[in-house]
Amino acid sequence: MKIGILGTGIVGKTIASALISNGHEVKIGSRSAKNEKNIAFVAMAANKNASAGTFADAAAFGEIIFNCTAGSASLDALKLAGATNLDGKILVDISNPLDFSKGMPPSLSVCNTNSLGEEIQKEFPDVKVVKTLNTIWSKLMVNPSLVNYGDHNVFICGDDEAAKKVIIDLVLIPFGWLKKNIFDLGDITKARGTEMYLSLWLSLYGTIDSGAFNVKIVR
Amino acid sequence: MKIGILGTGIVGKTIASALISNGHEVKIGSRSAKNEKNIAFVAMAANKNASAGTFADAAAFGEIIFNCTAGSASLDALKLAGATNLDGKILVDISNPLDFSKGMPPSLSVCNTNSLGEEIQKEFPDVKVVKTLNTIWSKLMVNPSLVNYGDHNVFICGDDEAAKKVIIDLVLIPFGWLKKNIFDLGDITKARGTEMYLSLWLSLYGTIDSGAFNVKIVR
Repeated sequence: MKIGILGTGIVGKTIASALISNGHEVKIGSRSAKNEKNIAFVAMAANKNASAGTFADAAAFGEIIFNCTAGSASLDALKLAGATNLDGKILVDISNPLDFSKGMPPSLSVCNTNSLGEEIQKEFPDVKVVKTLNTIWSKLMVNPSLVNYGDHNVFICGDDEAAKKVIIDLVLIPFGWLKKNIFDLGDITKARGTEMYLSLWLSLYGTIDSGAFNVKIVR
Repeated sequence: MKIGILGTGIVGKTIASALISNGHEVKIGSRSAKNEKNIAFVAMAANKNASAGTFADAAAFGEIIFNCTAGSASLDALKLAGATNLDGKILVDISNPLDFSKGMPPSLSVCNTNSLGEEIQKEFPDVKVVKTLNTIWSKLMVNPSLVNYGDHNVFICGDDEAAKKVIIDLVLIPFGWLKKNIFDLGDITKARGTEMYLSLWLSLYGTIDSGAFNVKIVR
């Protein structure tokens, strides 16, 4: 399938590489088509299924779009991508509203009674926002077997039930997530919980001194 | 040891019962010494190690104090308990700043760049605040073996290293928590993460339809 990736940071490149490995055609987009990371990624991928362009190019290209931009830049990036290029499509939102402007650890620019996932859904009401993978270290997103034989949880939420099912079958299971470990929390308001968990995640990351961990819900 | 419990709700009663089972002398405190739940608890416990009184009575009695009041009432309850009764002692803070005034699910009255644990520590600088157990269903707090053979995590944080060690040895391990699963996150600012996790906990609780679950950190 044709997939557009917004963001050329570590998350964008990791997701793009994994999707290309799974046989998808990927266009990675950034603010400028001449973005160095963008060009470097395509050169590195050296794959007919990898291409690069602007946010709008990537959004127009993709049948499904991934938001892998920094949370502080996400709404701007999506506006540059353009509602006409996004409307009717699934937008997988992996971003977190981390605010580094007040020092470390970062706080959240939105939380508690709102979330970035909801802000994006409100700004683009005709887009099917699916929030997932945002609670997990980038390397682990696409290779859950790196820890505990892949037996740990990924959360998913969003208002469109069919869109969540597409992302589970087309993205999460091919990445290696076990169906029993994909936890559907409900509608897009549930993004609050997964984004606010970042505060605990950052403490755990600081204590463990590695991103190679995740939570497993036990009952 | 003599332990004072502030709060006669389900958490206070559960913790008090478990501490009595472990051989401690417990005084459970509420706003009024004639609180019905208070009197009922002592009658139910029917144990020479159970007694009841006001918040101040419980705080004066205990060598260690547990804050098991609702988060919205905690600072008031602690002021009624009185700094002179609390100073120099360990205060185990199990509360969460849940705000039910705007409907369900509750939001947090403080979060992101602050936490209730920190608020309590600031209000009572001579008290050794240890935040723990607040991420866990009450029945599971005192009986972790209820799920996954007891193999899941409890978090602890606070500024006083010796106080955390006392609570691990005197409370958490006797309750059944495995030493390897007691996760010290650091100083009291880490209460932000464990309190903000409540948003995800509430989503999980809604989906699982039971409180008999917890997270296990896998690496």
